Amino acid sequence: MRLIVLSIVLFFFVTNLGAQEPQHQGEYVLVIHGGAGTILKSGMTPEKEKAYRSGLEQALLAGYNKIKEGKSGIDAVQAAINVMEDNPLFNAGKGAVFTHDGKNELDASIMDGKTLKAGAVAGVTVIKNPIDAARAVMEKSEHVMMVGKGAEIFAKQSGLTIVKPKYFYTEERWKGLQNAIREEKMKSDHSYNSNGTGYPDYKFGTVGAVALDNDGNLAAGTSTGGMTNKRYGRVGDAPILGAGTYANNNTAAVSCTGWGEFFIRSVVAFDLSAMMEYKGATVRQAGDAVIKKVGDLGGNGGLISIDKKGNISMPFNTAVMYRGAITKDGKTEIYIYKG
Amino acid sequence: MRLIVLSIVLFFFVTNLGAQEPQHQGEYVLVIHGGAGTILKSGMTPEKEKAYRSGLEQALLAGYNKIKEGKSGIDAVQAAINVMEDNPLFNAGKGAVFTHDGKNELDASIMDGKTLKAGAVAGVTVIKNPIDAARAVMEKSEHVMMVGKGAEIFAKQSGLTIVKPKYFYTEERWKGLQNAIREEKMKSDHSYNSNGTGYPDYKFGTVGAVALDNDGNLAAGTSTGGMTNKRYGRVGDAPILGAGTYANNNTAAVSCTGWGEFFIRSVVAFDLSAMMEYKGATVRQAGDAVIKKVGDLGGNGGLISIDKKGNISMPFNTAVMYRGAITKDGKTEIYIYKG
Repeated sequence: MRLIVLSIVLFFFVTNLGAQEPQHQGEYVLVIHGGAGTILKSGMTPEKEKAYRSGLEQALLAGYNKIKEGKSGIDAVQAAINVMEDNPLFNAGKGAVFTHDGKNELDASIMDGKTLKAGAVAGVTVIKNPIDAARAVMEKSEHVMMVGKGAEIFAKQSGLTIVKPKYFYTEERWKGLQNAIREEKMKSDHSYNSNGTGYPDYKFGTVGAVALDNDGNLAAGTSTGGMTNKRYGRVGDAPILGAGTYANNNTAAVSCTGWGEFFIRSVVAFDLSAMMEYKGATVRQAGDAVIKKVGDLGGNGGLISIDKKGNISMPFNTAVMYRGAITKDGKTEIYIYKG
Repeated sequence: MRLIVLSIVLFFFVTNLGAQEPQHQGEYVLVIHGGAGTILKSGMTPEKEKAYRSGLEQALLAGYNKIKEGKSGIDAVQAAINVMEDNPLFNAGKGAVFTHDGKNELDASIMDGKTLKAGAVAGVTVIKNPIDAARAVMEKSEHVMMVGKGAEIFAKQSGLTIVKPKYFYTEERWKGLQNAIREEKMKSDHSYNSNGTGYPDYKFGTVGAVALDNDGNLAAGTSTGGMTNKRYGRVGDAPILGAGTYANNNTAAVSCTGWGEFFIRSVVAFDLSAMMEYKGATVRQAGDAVIKKVGDLGGNGGLISIDKKGNISMPFNTAVMYRGAITKDGKTEIYIYKG
């Protein structure tokens, strides 16, 4: 089984080496992703594809409107992510996947490139929009990261919308957990589940957004429902500043999606920034280099990034990454497969 | 109050600019720290200082013996940290500080510079030696980070020593919590507590070790009881790979101690490595630069680091950092105040 998984990973890695995104230079103000993974064209219906594209478009416009109104990059990132959190198609907020114990445990983080202030929550179960909680941690507490019940108490005290855990229930995700448990029993191979590439319609959910506002400030945010069938209070890269999310006005804003363990070990989001700061890499060169590093370690996923000039990059080494970008003139681009 | 705190921070920062550590070049195999903070010489009795020095010496020798026996850097890091976790003088394992709710919630992380594999636990309350749990996550699971009860279940399944929460009780730390709560009530200023510089004998506990083994492999680990009087499931930098702990055979092994929020925002441990990799900085130049960055943001603390040639650095911008190093010939050095 491990060999098969490795082969699949290597296959995606090798096939992606030749793939080229369009050169996204300047003029962009917002980029979003709705997860990367292994859904193949053959497994996607036209209806489903339309729904994903529409969800991404709505998220882009929600964020763009904030920029247009002169609001901050943080406002734009939050607005875009809120739309995806509320859309059950994406593995964040409503639509989050289930843990092995049948719970929805959500994580999120946000960072302000101007002040380098940041906030994150992990393992929360009753906060409707985890990215709002991450922002509250950043702005209303002296901490950066809060987990579990403590984070929920803080969110409630901060006036955020609290829901019953069953709010996050969706039939599709529940079926996903049952499939995962059944297949795990059949295969008795846990690597299958951590990797997830074995599931016909598995994707690394996680949504994210990066923005450049009218004042030239960068911001990044990430929100996720985690990994189907996860155990042991596992935390992925989404709530880890430097790994899943990073923003710095001197370099870029970054949000990642993928096999979280590899993104933590590679400190992906900060590494992109460090390559720009210390080596003079462009946002595109740095993005390609860090995703190559993840692949070299055996991991997969992708990221979105924007620099202070509005240049963007959206590299990934999986079959698909749901993603979109919008220019300062409001021109939207939506992609699912290789560009 | 904020102004006073700021002044204290600035004072330490400015007074430290002139301080110079000896040039620790080559020949070292292990460096440890037992926390950084603001204990002044006037508040330290000769007996207490002797006890700290002895505790650090024992930890150094425990790690050194592993290196001498030809064991891995990971073994050396774990052995050194175990000694400090078991010593109630240090804020890790036995001797951990109390949360606001009167609990001991412990965090730890470990990383192998050869494989870039890593493990971390956060918010655990019944694992005697959290660094052992971090190592078990790294070696026996496919995850990198586990939190709370899930991490404890995994540790138990992995055969680690489980204790009752009261194992971590020490009278001195309990008094510390009562003082913190009383002073908080008096001052009603939370910044006082997050910073901690107001406490006459406060220190940023956290212990850590970095090692270079006979095979040339680097390893790093960090373990902490967190922050006295902390709330909301707050997580600091100690269990965050890239922030509190990082190791990479191409650059250095790093363990940090200090005001965790600033270390997370600055991704300190990985930034040191990135400066070495991308700018060609020495371990000393990079160490000084990242601690300066933390100070510029308003934070304080320190770190220990060792590169593949056995050069070390131990920069800090607080009044003291409990620290020690040992050469491959077994020569030990112990420091508390500025070198």
